[in-house]
Amino acid sequence: MTEINNKFLEPYIENSIENDSTDKKIEEDKQASPLSRRGFLRTAAVTGGAALAGSTMPARAAQMDHSAMQDKGYNTMMFMEGHSMKPGQIIEPPGSPSDTEVDYKVFDIDVQIVEHEILPGVKLHMFAFNGQVPGPEFHLTEGDWVKINFTNRTEEMHTIHWHGIVLPYTMDGVPMVNQDPVHPGDTFVYRFQAKPSGTRWYHCHWSTPLHAATAMHGAFIIHRKNEPLKKRFPYTRDYTMMLEAWDIDFAREEMNGLLEGMKEVNILMAQGKLDYKTHGFFKDYMEFKKSIESGEYVAPYLQSRSSGVVVRPNYFAINGKSYPATKRIGIKQGEWIRVRLINASGLSHHMHLHGHDFWWVAQDGNDLAEPRHLNTIHVEPGGTYDVMVYGDNPGFWAWHDHKTTQVRNNGIYPGGMLTVLAYEDFEPTYIPSLSIDQ
Amino acid sequence: MTEINNKFLEPYIENSIENDSTDKKIEEDKQASPLSRRGFLRTAAVTGGAALAGSTMPARAAQMDHSAMQDKGYNTMMFMEGHSMKPGQIIEPPGSPSDTEVDYKVFDIDVQIVEHEILPGVKLHMFAFNGQVPGPEFHLTEGDWVKINFTNRTEEMHTIHWHGIVLPYTMDGVPMVNQDPVHPGDTFVYRFQAKPSGTRWYHCHWSTPLHAATAMHGAFIIHRKNEPLKKRFPYTRDYTMMLEAWDIDFAREEMNGLLEGMKEVNILMAQGKLDYKTHGFFKDYMEFKKSIESGEYVAPYLQSRSSGVVVRPNYFAINGKSYPATKRIGIKQGEWIRVRLINASGLSHHMHLHGHDFWWVAQDGNDLAEPRHLNTIHVEPGGTYDVMVYGDNPGFWAWHDHKTTQVRNNGIYPGGMLTVLAYEDFEPTYIPSLSIDQ
Amino acid sequence: MTEINNKFLEPYIENSIENDSTDKKIEEDKQASPLSRRGFLRTAAVTGGAALAGSTMPARAAQMDHSAMQDKGYNTMMFMEGHSMKPGQIIEPPGSPSDTEVDYKVFDIDVQIVEHEILPGVKLHMFAFNGQVPGPEFHLTEGDWVKINFTNRTEEMHTIHWHGIVLPYTMDGVPMVNQDPVHPGDTFVYRFQAKPSGTRWYHCHWSTPLHAATAMHGAFIIHRKNEPLKKRFPYTRDYTMMLEAWDIDFAREEMNGLLEGMKEVNILMAQGKLDYKTHGFFKDYMEFKKSIESGEYVAPYLQSRSSGVVVRPNYFAINGKSYPATKRIGIKQGEWIRVRLINASGLSHHMHLHGHDFWWVAQDGNDLAEPRHLNTIHVEPGGTYDVMVYGDNPGFWAWHDHKTTQVRNNGIYPGGMLTVLAYEDFEPTYIPSLSIDQ
Repeated sequence: MTEINNKFLEPYIENSIENDSTDKKIEEDKQASPLSRRGFLRTAAVTGGAALAGSTMPARAAQMDHSAMQDKGYNTMMFMEGHSMKPGQIIEPPGSPSDTEVDYKVFDIDVQIVEHEILPGVKLHMFAFNGQVPGPEFHLTEGDWVKINFTNRTEEMHTIHWHGIVLPYTMDGVPMVNQDPVHPGDTFVYRFQAKPSGTRWYHCHWSTPLHAATAMHGAFIIHRKNEPLKKRFPYTRDYTMMLEAWDIDFAREEMNGLLEGMKEVNILMAQGKLDYKTHGFFKDYMEFKKSIESGEYVAPYLQSRSSGVVVRPNYFAINGKSYPATKRIGIKQGEWIRVRLINASGLSHHMHLHGHDFWWVAQDGNDLAEPRHLNTIHVEPGGTYDVMVYGDNPGFWAWHDHKTTQVRNNGIYPGGMLTVLAYEDFEPTYIPSLSIDQ
Repeated sequence: MTEINNKFLEPYIENSIENDSTDKKIEEDKQASPLSRRGFLRTAAVTGGAALAGSTMPARAAQMDHSAMQDKGYNTMMFMEGHSMKPGQIIEPPGSPSDTEVDYKVFDIDVQIVEHEILPGVKLHMFAFNGQVPGPEFHLTEGDWVKINFTNRTEEMHTIHWHGIVLPYTMDGVPMVNQDPVHPGDTFVYRFQAKPSGTRWYHCHWSTPLHAATAMHGAFIIHRKNEPLKKRFPYTRDYTMMLEAWDIDFAREEMNGLLEGMKEVNILMAQGKLDYKTHGFFKDYMEFKKSIESGEYVAPYLQSRSSGVVVRPNYFAINGKSYPATKRIGIKQGEWIRVRLINASGLSHHMHLHGHDFWWVAQDGNDLAEPRHLNTIHVEPGGTYDVMVYGDNPGFWAWHDHKTTQVRNNGIYPGGMLTVLAYEDFEPTYIPSLSIDQ
Repeated sequence: MTEINNKFLEPYIENSIENDSTDKKIEEDKQASPLSRRGFLRTAAVTGGAALAGSTMPARAAQMDHSAMQDKGYNTMMFMEGHSMKPGQIIEPPGSPSDTEVDYKVFDIDVQIVEHEILPGVKLHMFAFNGQVPGPEFHLTEGDWVKINFTNRTEEMHTIHWHGIVLPYTMDGVPMVNQDPVHPGDTFVYRFQAKPSGTRWYHCHWSTPLHAATAMHGAFIIHRKNEPLKKRFPYTRDYTMMLEAWDIDFAREEMNGLLEGMKEVNILMAQGKLDYKTHGFFKDYMEFKKSIESGEYVAPYLQSRSSGVVVRPNYFAINGKSYPATKRIGIKQGEWIRVRLINASGLSHHMHLHGHDFWWVAQDGNDLAEPRHLNTIHVEPGGTYDVMVYGDNPGFWAWHDHKTTQVRNNGIYPGGMLTVLAYEDFEPTYIPSLSIDQ
C-alpha cells in the first residue's frame, strides 16, 4: 500500500499506517503527455471548447474580454533581483538534512492537466496532483522526515505550499518569497519533518486563484502516536472532506488564457528575448513603481479586465464531486468517527449535520482547549476543522452547506456541497434514494 | 394563550409557559384560499406583478431568462425507486410513539402564500408558516412530546426540517432522504420529543433556497427547567432575532416560475402522464447518469440559466422587517436580557451592539464551556447564537450588521439589519427619532 | 511626540506612552482647502475623472445610473422630530465631566478629502481623518479621560463612532440615535473615559458604507498597566493591521454623487427652502409611512438604482496599501510580537501566516478565556482580533488573506491583502524580492 490515499471518503483506518514500513512511491499516471493534452485544450478554446465539457453559459462568456486575457494572461508583476526565470536550474535549497542524515519517507508527486467530471455532464480541465481531484492524501506520523519529488508535467509554473506545516522557509513553496517557481518539466525536491500533528494540507501557491482553487490541493494528515483525542472520542474511522468551489467559466477562461500566455513566454525565454517590462518582470519594487509612473509599463490591474474581478463559483464539491455524485459517509451504531474538513475553496462553508450534535475538537490541526458541541461547523477559507460524530441516532442524515446558494449546481437546487451520513447497521423504515451510493 | 408566540420582539417571559397546561391549537388564518391567491400571482406575473410590490429593478429583470425558467421551473433531479409522487398518500411514518403512549402537546401549522410588507412600499409574496413572517415561535420544555399537524395550503410541495433537534430520522423533513414531500392539500404529522434544550429552529427543506430563505422559518426554543445560565445571568426577558435576507427579484421570479411549473406537473400527475425524464424523476442515480450521457435528458444545470446562479439579496431583515420598520429591544437598568440570534438568511451577519460588551453564551443551542465577552457577534448561516446583555449603560444604542452593505434597503443606507437597544427607565438627554417605535 | 501614531506598521513600543506626559495636538494638514479640492472632484466627474486615477472599468461604469445618483444622492430617510439640521448649532452634549472635573488628554482630529495612492498607479479621493489612510492610531491607558475635538473640513456631514468603547450614549456617534450630525465647518467635542482596555477602533457612522468603508477609520488602543498577557507572551513590539477593501468605482461614483447632492442641500438650507419630503426628512416614522403610501414621496430604495446594490471591492489593503505596496512586519528570533487585526472592510478576511502557529488571545478587545493555537485567523466585519507570534522559525513568511480573490488587485493575482513576516536577524539562503521593503 501507499501512504498516500488515492480514494476519497474511503475512511482512513489507523492500522494501515502502523503495518507499513516501506516508502513505496506512487506510480505515475501513464496518460497522454501534458503537451498533447494541452494542444487539445488550445484547439478546444478556438473551436468552442466549452461545448465539450457539457455546460455553456452564454451570458457570462459574452461579458468576458477574451482578447485582453489572451494577450496579457501571463503579465503579472514580479521582482527578479537575484532570481532567474530560466528553466532547468532548480537546485535543492538548503535548510533540511541530506539523505544520509535522516531516514526519509520518499514520495513522488506530479502535476498534470486532467479532465475531471464534477457530476454527470460537467467536465473541466484542471491542474491536478497525480491526476487526482483532490490530490492524494498523505498520512504520516509526527516527526517523520519526508522527501517529496515534485515534477511539473504542465507548461505552466507551479510550486507546493505545505499549509500549516512548520518547516524551513526555503521549503514553504511561495514563489519569490521562498523559492523560484518550478518550470515545466522540472522536478523540485521538498524535504521537511512532518510537524506539528493534526489536519494540515498542501496546495500550489503559484497563481493561486486558479491553481490551488481548481484542484491543486490535497490533505496532509500528521498523526500522533497514542492519539490523546481517542481517550474521550475512541474513533475507529477517519474521514476527510475537502470542500471546493469552482467557477467553471472563470477556470476555463483563465486556464486557456494562461496556457496561451505561457506559450509566448516559453518561446521568448528560449530565444532570450523576454521583454521584462511587457511581461511584468522588474528588478525590484522601485523599478516597477517608476515604470508605472513614467507610463512605460501599464500594469495589468490598470487595464480594463472586469471579467477577472468577479469569480462567481457555480459548482460546489466535496472531494471533487458535487451532489448527487458525492459519496456518503458510513457510520455504525455506537461508533465514533472523525471527520476532517478542509476548506480549499476560498469561500465560507457551513456544514450542518442533521439529527446529531457533534463535537468540534480541532482547528488548523491543533486541538481546542475545550471541544464545542455543535450541529453546524463553520469552515472558513484556509482553515481545517476536525469533528467527532457519535453514532446514536440510526438513519440517513443530510450533511450540507447551510448557505443555500452552495447546495446548487449552476443555480439548480439540490446539488453542490451535500452528502449523507448513513448508518450501516439498522433496518430502515424509509429508504432514501438520492445519490451515487444507492 | 398558545405556546406559539405570534408576535416578534415581544420578549418571552418564562411564567407564560409554567402556567400553561393546555394544548391549545393555533387558529388558522381565514384568508382567501391559496388557490385564488395563486391565481392572482399568475396574473400578476403576466401583467407586471413587480409593479404591485412597489419596487422594480429593470437591469436585473432584463438579464433573466424567463422562458427557460417558466418551461423548466420544476425540472429538478430526483430518484424515485421505492417512492411515489402521488398526492393524498401520506402515512404517518414510524419512529415515534402513538397518541396513547405519551402525552403530546399538539400544534397545527400550515403554509400559505401571503403578501408581506418588509418596509413601507416593499411587499413580497412569500411562503409563510401560519401566514406569518417569520413563522410562529415555539416554546417548549426539554422532554416534552410534540405532535405537529402540518398542512400544505399551497400548490407547491413542502416539508419541515427541525433544525438542530435530535429526533427519529423519519421526522427530519428532508425530501427523499427522510420522507416524501407533502403535496398540496395534504397534512403530514410530525411527532418527536423536544430535545436537546436550547435555541433550535425549523424551516422547509424542499427547494430550500426559495422556501426556507424567503419566510418558511421560525424559532423552536426548548427551555430547561431551572435554567443553569440564570445563575450567572439572571435574565428576565428573552428575545429572538431571526436574521433574514431577500433578493426580492429572485424570489419573485422563482416563485412564479415554480408555481407555473407545478401547475404542469399537477395536471400531468392527475392524468397519469408525468414524463419522468423530462421532469427529472429517475429510478436511481445510474439511470440519471445514463440518461445524461446518452443525451436523452438535459439536466437543468446544463442549460443556460445564468440568472439563477446569482442570488443577490437587496433587503435584510430582523423578524421580517427592515430598518426603519424594525422593532426596538427594551431593557432596564440592572436587568439582564437574553437575545437568541438565528441565521435564516444564508449569509453571514455581524451584529455589533454599541456601548456594551455582552456575553456570548451558546451556539447551536448548546452552552459554551466558557462564555465569551464581545461587542460583535458573528452569526453564520444555519447557526444559532445566544447572548446575554446587562443593562448598565442607559441610552439608545444601535445594534446592527457591521457588514455595511447589509444595513441598506435596495442599496440605500441606512436600512436593513439594524435595530436599537432602548433603555426604558431613564431620562434621555438626546431623544432619538429613528424608527417605528417612536 | 503625540499619542496618535501617524505611521503604520511602525510597531508601537510601550515606553513611548510611559515617557509621555503632554497632550500635544496633532498638527493639521496644510493642504489645499477642501472646497477647492471638491471643485476639482466635480470637474473630474464631468470630464472623466476616473482617468486621473489610473484605472477605468468601462463595463461597470456603463451599468451605473449616473442621473439617478446625482439627482438623489442625498435623499435618504431621516426622522427630524426634536432635531435640527441647521449648521453651527452643535452644543457639547451632556454625559461627561467638564474640563475642570477631570484631567483630559486632548486631541484634535479632522476629516478631509485626500487623494490616496493604494498602490502604484491607483489613486482615489477618500474621506480621511487628519488626511491619513487609515486615520491616526490612538494609544491610551485604561481609565484615561480623553477629549477629542473633531472638525469637519468637508462639505459632507460626519460623526465619529467609538467602536467597542463603553461611553455615555451621547458620545457614541450614531446620527439621530446619539447626536445630530456634524455639519461642514463645525467642531464636535467627544469626551469619554478610555475603557474597557484592548483593541478598539473608531470610524464615521454617517453614510457608513462610503465614509467608514473608504478611509474614515483608525485604531483606538487602550493599554492596561502591567498587561497580564505579557506574563505568558512577553511581547516587545505591538503592530496594528487595519484590513480594508475598496470598490474604487463605487467609491468614486458615490462620493461624486453625495458631494453633488450635498451642494444642493447646502444651498436650500441656507435659503430656508429645504423641501423635507423630496430630501427624505420626516417628522417621524408615521409621517414617512403615510407619505409613501399616498405616493407623495418615493423613497430612494423604491427607485431603480441597481448600481448601488452591488458593492464589489476590487482593491484589498492592509493599513491603506495593497501588495506589493504593503509594508512587511519585522520580528527577531526569540521575540514575541503582538499583532492587532481590525476589520474595517465589511468583508471577511482569513489571514494565514506561513510557517508558524500563532496564539489568538483576544477578540473585540477582550482576552479569550483560553488562547487558541492557529495559523489562520478569521477576521470578521467589525471585529478586532489580537494574535501573538513567537519568532522561532527564521525566514520570510507570507501572511495573507486565504480568500484567493482578495489577494488580487483589480482581479490580478498576486496583490491585495498580503504582507510578509520578515526575520531581521538571520542569514538568508533565499532572498525574496517582492515588495516595497526590498
